Amino acid sequence: MKRRAAKRSAPLSFQDEIAEVGRFIEARIGGLSGALPQPVPQRLKESMLYSLTAGGKRLRPILCLKAAEVFGMPWERAISLALGYEMVHTSSLIHDDLPSIDNDDLRRGKPTNHVVYGESLAIFAGDALMAWAFEYPIAALAKAKVPSGRVCRAMGIMANSLGPFGVYAGQVLDTDLESMEAGDDFPFKVAARKTGTLIAACVESGAVIGGAKRRASAAFRMYGMHLGIAFQIVDDILDETSSAQELGKTPGKDVAQNKRTFVSVYGLEEARRLALTESKRAVDALRVVGGDTRFFSALSDHLVERTR
Amino acid sequence: MKRRAAKRSAPLSFQDEIAEVGRFIEARIGGLSGALPQPVPQRLKESMLYSLTAGGKRLRPILCLKAAEVFGMPWERAISLALGYEMVHTSSLIHDDLPSIDNDDLRRGKPTNHVVYGESLAIFAGDALMAWAFEYPIAALAKAKVPSGRVCRAMGIMANSLGPFGVYAGQVLDTDLESMEAGDDFPFKVAARKTGTLIAACVESGAVIGGAKRRASAAFRMYGMHLGIAFQIVDDILDETSSAQELGKTPGKDVAQNKRTFVSVYGLEEARRLALTESKRAVDALRVVGGDTRFFSALSDHLVERTR
Repeated sequence: MKRRAAKRSAPLSFQDEIAEVGRFIEARIGGLSGALPQPVPQRLKESMLYSLTAGGKRLRPILCLKAAEVFGMPWERAISLALGYEMVHTSSLIHDDLPSIDNDDLRRGKPTNHVVYGESLAIFAGDALMAWAFEYPIAALAKAKVPSGRVCRAMGIMANSLGPFGVYAGQVLDTDLESMEAGDDFPFKVAARKTGTLIAACVESGAVIGGAKRRASAAFRMYGMHLGIAFQIVDDILDETSSAQELGKTPGKDVAQNKRTFVSVYGLEEARRLALTESKRAVDALRVVGGDTRFFSALSDHLVERTR
Repeated sequence: MKRRAAKRSAPLSFQDEIAEVGRFIEARIGGLSGALPQPVPQRLKESMLYSLTAGGKRLRPILCLKAAEVFGMPWERAISLALGYEMVHTSSLIHDDLPSIDNDDLRRGKPTNHVVYGESLAIFAGDALMAWAFEYPIAALAKAKVPSGRVCRAMGIMANSLGPFGVYAGQVLDTDLESMEAGDDFPFKVAARKTGTLIAACVESGAVIGGAKRRASAAFRMYGMHLGIAFQIVDDILDETSSAQELGKTPGKDVAQNKRTFVSVYGLEEARRLALTESKRAVDALRVVGGDTRFFSALSDHLVERTR
C-alpha cells in the first residue's frame, strides 16, 4: 500500500523498476519446484531446476510481465506465461551447450547441465522443460480465468517462436556448417531466428494475454524483434571483448568455432553502430502504442550498454 | 457419397476401417512439407520430414481422429491435432535413438535421423518437431473455428503427456541407471510414463476436441493408458522374440542394455498374460461412453496380437 502510494507520487527509476520485477520473477522461479506435476523422477527434477535456477538476466519473463502490465494485467496473472518463456529459453541453452553442439562447459558462471547430469539426462531435461513451458501456463491461465482465446493466441506465438521458423531454425543456421549462407545479411538472419523470434514472442504474447488489440501487440512484436537483434549483436561483441569471469560463460567461442558473427562480418565498430540502430528501431516501433512504454525504451538503452 | 451409403448398409470391417484412416493420415503427413512455416533452413526441413515420413503404425493420430469421430467431428477438422501427436512422438524417437541415449541406428527399417543428418541436427529436428506439434494444431484449429476452450484443454493434455510427468519422465526412468527403482511394478511405472501418457493423451484430447464431456473424455484417457501399457508389454516381448527385419528396428537392445522390462521382470508367459489383462481393462474403461466404440475394442485386440 505504502509502496503504491510512493510509486504514484514519484515513479520508480528504471533501475529500481527492473530490480523489482526481477525479484518477483526470481522468487517465483524458486517456488517452481512445488509446481512440478507429480511424480517426477528425482534426477530429472534436479536437472531441470539446476538450469532454471542458475540465474541469468531473466530478460524474457521481465519483458512478458511488463508488456502485460501495459494493458492493465497484474504480474500475478501473467507470471505463468513469463515463466514459460524462461523454461523454453533454458531448454534451448541446455541443448545448445551439449557436446555435439556448442560443447560448452560453463553457463551463467556454473558447470553446464550435461557436465553435472550427463548428456542423456541433459537432453531429456531440455525436452521436459519445453513441454512444461506449455503445460504450466495453459493450466495456470485457465485457473486464473484468462479468456481461452487469448491463451490460445499466446501459446501459438510461443510455439511459433521456437519451431522450424524460430529458435531451432536459428540454431541450425548457427551451428550446421552446410546450412551456412553467403551474404552480409547472414548474421541478421541467424539473430532474427535464434534470438529475435523468442524475444519478440515474449513481449507480443505478454501484450496479448494482457488484452492488447492486434495493432498494439504487433508493435510489441516488432519492438522485441529489433531488441533481440540488438541483444545478439552485443552478445557477439562481448564474446570477443570480455573475460569468462565478466561473461559467466566461455568467451571467444565464436571465433574458435569459425562462426559468422556480427563482429566477424562487420568488424567491432560497425557492429556497435548496428546495435544502436536496432535499439532505436525497437523504441520507434512502440510509438503507436497508447500506454506507458517508457520502461521498454529504457530497457533497450540498458541492453545496448551492458557489459555482460 | 457412394462409400457413405455403402458404409451405412454394411459397416466397414476393422481392417478396412484402420486402413482407411491410415491412408488419410499418411496423405496428410505427405502434405506437411507445404505447411511448414517459412523460411525453414533446408537441412532442418529435410531432417524433420525424413523421420516424420518414415512410416510407422501411425497409432497415435489414428486414435486421435477416431476419438474425435465418436463425438461427431469429421477427420478433416481434427487432423491437425492428430498430426501434432505424430510430431511429438517422432520427436521423442529421434532423441531416444541418439548416441548418448539408446544409440540406435535403425528405426522403422531406415537409418536413424542422427545417422543421416548428424547428432546436432537430429537434436534440433526433435526440438523443432516438438514446437511444431503445438504451433501447427493451435493455428489450424483456430482457422477451423474449433472453440478455443477445447483447443486450450487439448493442448494442455498434450503438454502434460510429454513433460516432467509424462514421456520424458519415462525416458529418464528407462535410461538413467541412477533413476532405476527396485520393485516389480517398475516396468509398469516406466510404461505408464513412456508410452501410456502419450497414448492416453491422444485419445483423450481427440475426444475433447470432438466435444466430449468430462466423463467421456476421462474414460478415453483410461482406455489409452491401459492400451499404452499393453502396447509397451508387447513391445518388450517382440524385442526379445523378433528379428530386425520383422521389427524394423534393432531387436535385443533391452537385454543388451540391461533394461528392466516386462519380460526380464515377469518372464515371457506372464508378460503375455499381463498384456491381455491391460487390453481388457482398456476396453472395459469405455463402457461408460455412449457412442460407438467398437473400433477401439477391435484395435485393442489387434495391438496385443501384433507381430511387429
